[in-house]
Amino acid sequence: MNDTTNNLPASSGAALMEKIVSLCKRRGFIYPSSEIYGGINGFWDYGPLGSELKRNVKELWWRDMVLERDDVVGLEATIIMHPKIWKASGHVDTFADMMRECPLTKKRVRADQVEPQSGVIYRWSGAESHASPFKCEKPFAVLLRKGEHPDTARKKAREYYAHGTIDAETGRWKDLELTGETTATAADSVDFHPESGAQLTEARPFNLMFKTFVGASEPAEEAYLRPETAQAIFTQFKNVLETSRQRTPFGIAQIGKAFRNEVTPRNYTFRSREFEQMEVEFFIKPDEVVEAISGKVARASEISNPPSAIANPRSDWGWEAWHKYWVEERIAFYEGIGLPRHSLVEYWQKAEELAHYARATVDILYRFPFSKRNDGGELMGEELEGIAARSDFDLSQHERHSGKPMGVFDEDLRAAWTALPKEKQDALWKRYYENRKKYLVKAGATGDEAHKEATEDANGLPKGQYIPHVIEPSAGVDRLILALICNAYSEVTETDEKGRSETRVILKFHPRVAPIKAGVMPLLKNKPALVKKAMEIRDLLRPWINVFYDDGGSIGRRYARQDEAGTPFCVTVDFETLGEKPELLDTVTVRHRDDGRQERVKISELLNWLMPRVR
Amino acid sequence: MNDTTNNLPASSGAALMEKIVSLCKRRGFIYPSSEIYGGINGFWDYGPLGSELKRNVKELWWRDMVLERDDVVGLEATIIMHPKIWKASGHVDTFADMMRECPLTKKRVRADQVEPQSGVIYRWSGAESHASPFKCEKPFAVLLRKGEHPDTARKKAREYYAHGTIDAETGRWKDLELTGETTATAADSVDFHPESGAQLTEARPFNLMFKTFVGASEPAEEAYLRPETAQAIFTQFKNVLETSRQRTPFGIAQIGKAFRNEVTPRNYTFRSREFEQMEVEFFIKPDEVVEAISGKVARASEISNPPSAIANPRSDWGWEAWHKYWVEERIAFYEGIGLPRHSLVEYWQKAEELAHYARATVDILYRFPFSKRNDGGELMGEELEGIAARSDFDLSQHERHSGKPMGVFDEDLRAAWTALPKEKQDALWKRYYENRKKYLVKAGATGDEAHKEATEDANGLPKGQYIPHVIEPSAGVDRLILALICNAYSEVTETDEKGRSETRVILKFHPRVAPIKAGVMPLLKNKPALVKKAMEIRDLLRPWINVFYDDGGSIGRRYARQDEAGTPFCVTVDFETLGEKPELLDTVTVRHRDDGRQERVKISELLNWLMPRVR
Repeated sequence: MNDTTNNLPASSGAALMEKIVSLCKRRGFIYPSSEIYGGINGFWDYGPLGSELKRNVKELWWRDMVLERDDVVGLEATIIMHPKIWKASGHVDTFADMMRECPLTKKRVRADQVEPQSGVIYRWSGAESHASPFKCEKPFAVLLRKGEHPDTARKKAREYYAHGTIDAETGRWKDLELTGETTATAADSVDFHPESGAQLTEARPFNLMFKTFVGASEPAEEAYLRPETAQAIFTQFKNVLETSRQRTPFGIAQIGKAFRNEVTPRNYTFRSREFEQMEVEFFIKPDEVVEAISGKVARASEISNPPSAIANPRSDWGWEAWHKYWVEERIAFYEGIGLPRHSLVEYWQKAEELAHYARATVDILYRFPFSKRNDGGELMGEELEGIAARSDFDLSQHERHSGKPMGVFDEDLRAAWTALPKEKQDALWKRYYENRKKYLVKAGATGDEAHKEATEDANGLPKGQYIPHVIEPSAGVDRLILALICNAYSEVTETDEKGRSETRVILKFHPRVAPIKAGVMPLLKNKPALVKKAMEIRDLLRPWINVFYDDGGSIGRRYARQDEAGTPFCVTVDFETLGEKPELLDTVTVRHRDDGRQERVKISELLNWLMPRVR
Repeated sequence: MNDTTNNLPASSGAALMEKIVSLCKRRGFIYPSSEIYGGINGFWDYGPLGSELKRNVKELWWRDMVLERDDVVGLEATIIMHPKIWKASGHVDTFADMMRECPLTKKRVRADQVEPQSGVIYRWSGAESHASPFKCEKPFAVLLRKGEHPDTARKKAREYYAHGTIDAETGRWKDLELTGETTATAADSVDFHPESGAQLTEARPFNLMFKTFVGASEPAEEAYLRPETAQAIFTQFKNVLETSRQRTPFGIAQIGKAFRNEVTPRNYTFRSREFEQMEVEFFIKPDEVVEAISGKVARASEISNPPSAIANPRSDWGWEAWHKYWVEERIAFYEGIGLPRHSLVEYWQKAEELAHYARATVDILYRFPFSKRNDGGELMGEELEGIAARSDFDLSQHERHSGKPMGVFDEDLRAAWTALPKEKQDALWKRYYENRKKYLVKAGATGDEAHKEATEDANGLPKGQYIPHVIEPSAGVDRLILALICNAYSEVTETDEKGRSETRVILKFHPRVAPIKAGVMPLLKNKPALVKKAMEIRDLLRPWINVFYDDGGSIGRRYARQDEAGTPFCVTVDFETLGEKPELLDTVTVRHRDDGRQERVKISELLNWLMPRVR
């Protein structure tokens, strides 16, 4: 529903999201997890319609990325893996948000999300007790908001100094005297906890991985729930290579759950703590290898000239071409499941935004109703997918950390190398050496070590050995589901003969993703011949497409229910089907969701009529 | 391969499993998780062929259980849920193995799996030090195995008494004197740790749920990785009921990961720590409600007389009929994907084996090569699926723990009740009351509370209110995958013209589950016309079935590779396809995996020929 998401005034984004959340609950797309126990922040369940929608999206992705290609194979790895993987990937050390803590309540807030507050700051340099030999010289401050009495602040300070240092049971903390009280004015300060008002600690990193413990030993072995599916692909790269008859360029695909202990889950299912990813790691030859084999690396001007050229991979493609190829492929995928091009943004990360190992990253954004707007009032979009050119960083890291070789042997390279002129060999050797050395130094090797290892690596080229580079199209399933629902959401207002108008919802899903492909209904429930024929049609279609049989209520209400579920077609058995008009015997009415248009289709042709429209 | 699993001598089970494990690794069905880091015990990944096999099995289950039925809908809930759910389900309190700990190394072993050991037991009543005021009077014992010197035992004892009580750094523990040494003989004792030899502690429960921490607060909120998917269905029961237009009897299906921190993962993927379940909770009317509405509950003699009667649900079915129905449905499912009836065991749990809430449970076992054998030498089988009649236990527990009503309103019951004679009303009321009271007392209510609540519950009947009962068919995906591989595994020995014989593997998967449905190959790689035609056929089939294009090596080798992958059909483009014999123009050779039989099929009919054979 691009009209709504794109053209409504900015203020209505929240109102629209409220309608969507309510519809999702009411129609069984999405429920809060554990709702009868008050829910659990950042976790969402998919109901009957939602789980079918999600199944369709995952199946279409898998078909597109794996089954209909010769050069991508699947993998399904575990969520809990060896903890060293997350050391190698950098997640143990750097997958963290900066957090500040309330010294009073120990509650944490994200350093970049503290709400600005104004008031009077009360500060103390410490506290002491006369009844016992207690003296504390840590400073403490609390924000006194308008209308609060200064004693509120002092009470908090005494609690702070007493906590954990003096036994609260004995009451001795009541003797505490605060020392060095001063006050100051705060305007829009982000240094105080929004609830307690206490001054926050300095920001410290807070790792976002969920930790768990594996095995029965004491002490238990720590492990993590994977924060992304990608690393499993890298760690199984050699196993897949050796068992799948694939060679670079080729990809490994995986769909699966990942977990991030987000400090502030938000925007409905968009940023949740448990989510599903669809990722391909597409392994390619380094540019030096492409050049050795093909004589050159395709220049930018050749890659998409004519524009259709990008759809046809060539052996002289380097990483830039493959990266561009995947950006185009992925945008085409989104368009193919109903997200129009203008609802998407192709965002090329700027040099300063790139992860240190990435050579280029394109984010594909969808203009969600809750997205920020730019100065022109246009929704700027939120990330559905990132397509990163990650160089050989990941495989190299796992090679270093596991001690297992992660390179490939490439007969084409070995054969081509021998035929190269000496100066070409030297130039390619040198470039490969420099790239390896740059990585090794970044990874923490000393200059000498890096020189030695990079030399060994480059010496592999004549033997046909190298570490593949990788292009990673990585999409979030739940975000895509939410985008599809937002995009499909539309309202129609109808006025009946008595002049009463009613607004109802139509979910205009692309038929390929729609949870139910066809509603099947007898015109009347109490006519056995209609019911019998309708059930026959249900049974005819059901082995091939998801159908919903409905005989409850007026036909108009039934159509409206299917519109709200996003069902693209309704098939109705009426008296004409039974031969009331002989020429219409054994035909049915097919009603189109989006415009209410109806047409007659022969039952014998119905499956063939529907199949190409819903696949 | 039933010959092998059923008829080979008992000793060959392990050898067969070794071959299967090796094949699974070599062909990309199953890899150890995190293998390059030394693996992680109890976790397994699925490779390219394994992930397709698994996808097929899950899709077939979903089709059978959800899409092709009107009375089951889907759900996809999160793995991390509100921790109170596991209190309500009983998992926090009772989902535990009894474990014994080595007091020396703190390593734990399952109490029922300690290996019997023999030797001399050395016991001490305590230890004391003269150099420091240390005295310990805890007893300690260690088993001295044949050939070990008594000082080995004494050294362990001193380590035990010193550990944590005296600073090892200072060396003072060397002063320790053991007191009260006695010896005794042990024969096949299960009281000593298999590695350290130290006497194990008393058995204590060890909870099998994986624990994690959610949110950024300090202290963190504990949560669990779900140990089963079932509870999510119960907690979302009301949401699904209210949004899906379903009424009892109806089911909710879910496929998803579950996690159990098994003390001893074993039998390859059979007992692993991360696994996938396929579960339906099928909600039915309590027998009293069936009787109120239908006048009676179908007797056992009516349920399966004639035998086909069990396939056609009736409104007078009580829990016994529904339970039997699901047992039959599930066995039919397994037969339909290629597990022959004789490879399965339908095991009815004995009264003393039933969980306290279960009225009946049937386990469907598969005769794995690693299964134990009975006195007749027959493999006894291991559980693939359990089908339990769980009464109204689960919904009742969640009602008690969440404080949210979990019952349904049933207009049919309300209407029927009014028409019942008084004595019938009283009898049904009384039976419902007694059942509810029995549950409530078990759940911990006092007699008075139980009486009060059960009265309220039974008073709901005239208003059409009750808590549904449930039948739960719960299957393990990974176990089923392993059963399918074991069942498919077979070997064929062929002798070539030079008299050399070679044994190779054929995986005789049912075509419905086979990862690849058809291999497509040109007879020769270096004939462009053959290659072109073969690729056209690949592209013709690929939108509908998973195909594998292969042009590498001799046609015999390519067939053998597909046999090993379990591909039921190979389609070969040869010179006759191109018109060498005009009458065979545009036909291909289709080769059958299991018997090598070949037949000619027109390309124009190929898809229609294949589809019914692989779906």
